[in-house]
Amino acid sequence: MSEKVILDGNVVANAVKEELKSRIDALKTKGITPCLATILVGEDPSSATYVRMKGNACAKLGIDSKKIHLDKETTTEQLLETIQSLNEDSNVHGILLQHPVPDHIDERKAFETIAIDKDVDGVTSLGYGQTALGFGKYPSCTPAAILKIMEHYGIDASGKHAVVVGRSPILGKPVSALLLNEDATVTTCHSRTKNLAEHVKQADIVVAAVGKPNFIQGDWIKPGAVILDAGYNKGNVGDVDYEACLANASAITPVPGGVGPVTISMLLKHTVDSAEGK
Amino acid sequence: MSEKVILDGNVVANAVKEELKSRIDALKTKGITPCLATILVGEDPSSATYVRMKGNACAKLGIDSKKIHLDKETTTEQLLETIQSLNEDSNVHGILLQHPVPDHIDERKAFETIAIDKDVDGVTSLGYGQTALGFGKYPSCTPAAILKIMEHYGIDASGKHAVVVGRSPILGKPVSALLLNEDATVTTCHSRTKNLAEHVKQADIVVAAVGKPNFIQGDWIKPGAVILDAGYNKGNVGDVDYEACLANASAITPVPGGVGPVTISMLLKHTVDSAEGK
Repeated sequence: MSEKVILDGNVVANAVKEELKSRIDALKTKGITPCLATILVGEDPSSATYVRMKGNACAKLGIDSKKIHLDKETTTEQLLETIQSLNEDSNVHGILLQHPVPDHIDERKAFETIAIDKDVDGVTSLGYGQTALGFGKYPSCTPAAILKIMEHYGIDASGKHAVVVGRSPILGKPVSALLLNEDATVTTCHSRTKNLAEHVKQADIVVAAVGKPNFIQGDWIKPGAVILDAGYNKGNVGDVDYEACLANASAITPVPGGVGPVTISMLLKHTVDSAEGK
Repeated sequence: MSEKVILDGNVVANAVKEELKSRIDALKTKGITPCLATILVGEDPSSATYVRMKGNACAKLGIDSKKIHLDKETTTEQLLETIQSLNEDSNVHGILLQHPVPDHIDERKAFETIAIDKDVDGVTSLGYGQTALGFGKYPSCTPAAILKIMEHYGIDASGKHAVVVGRSPILGKPVSALLLNEDATVTTCHSRTKNLAEHVKQADIVVAAVGKPNFIQGDWIKPGAVILDAGYNKGNVGDVDYEACLANASAITPVPGGVGPVTISMLLKHTVDSAEGK
């Protein structure tokens, strides 16, 4: 049996952060401190945790974060005004609107209001279109993380058959687009897909982005396939039945410690890119 | 053997145009004449022919066309100025920049300059992103035509496996996105795809968008598959080996008289949509 590669997200994230440190130092000597603005609307505890984690990750690297917490009664109009003022604030290099916002807010409209140069979380349709057409600066962070893990571990997508399970605007769709641009043949599956197992069984690369714990089964995995699990469900469980899938895979991301930490490092990287004017 | 359906593009295009006529009449009673601006740069004879065909199609329905012919020495800057002035011209409802432009021009920059509300040909990355995320107004016309043909003939994509051969920004990518939004499981293949025949053999719906005459072979077609041929090569030949593929298919577009005429009708429809402020 050949050796399995555990795709360690912490190793990749640390490599990304190490490279960022010198870039941040260089910016500071020019009087620029990269700054990520985070907007949290309402009191959702997981959202609050995510925003706090992102703020902490910024702080550790010397990136400023500007935390904006709006109460749950905030209107769409008020949220748009907040975003506009951040768009115009030259000290802010990236804007992250934490999903989900309260139901009465037009989230899509809010996302679309984020200036393309500050859309470091990759949520605008313009950013998505530019990414899909091959010249986007800041893809959504989880898809960017998946590609970064592959790059770090020397996994070439060209000519491979990638099967993406999930089609959300910030995960399944953009990761399909990025893999296609890396010359993979890409199949995008979702809740309406028939014979899902048969599709996954053909994959050289499986991306699980479905949001269901342990959903991808071991006997769906072609021997030697690479598995990237972007799921993160209650109880620290991914979308992939890890032990069962590990048996067939040549390489796999664990949960936790796989895609998650790299996702945050991509957010930091995009913020530094933006501060550098890239 | 069950009956074959020849997906007749002229029938679909005529149905679209018939519906447009009353809408154009209604606009004219309000003093609005839909107007498509076409920009041709240089002297490429096929491009000149395409622009003339589009102008004629407009004229037949009572849509104005504003034909702008720039000489082949035009700079990117001059082209952008022309597009900007059309963006600002309230009498112009749609802008079509005929591809290709001379090599020295930054075509992507020119496309991106077209205002989203006038991007009736679906060439901007913003329009692409909006289409892929499910709220685009004007998808590229050939992908829109493929979906219109399916709608006209009652071919439901939901749960079907669609295999798209080609990944160009105005054809393979957006038609993949539209089929995904129609709940198909979508595989996008291209020049780097290995075992292309094996992928196509699994398709319930085959979209050929590759630009190679008679490229898709008869024995690649699963019995009962639906074939949409977006190819148009020298000698009036599609990307599909028509007679051989017809033997296995349940439905197929001919070339000529398939996707082509519907593509032009989609351009007209988008122009009328825009004039209506949709």
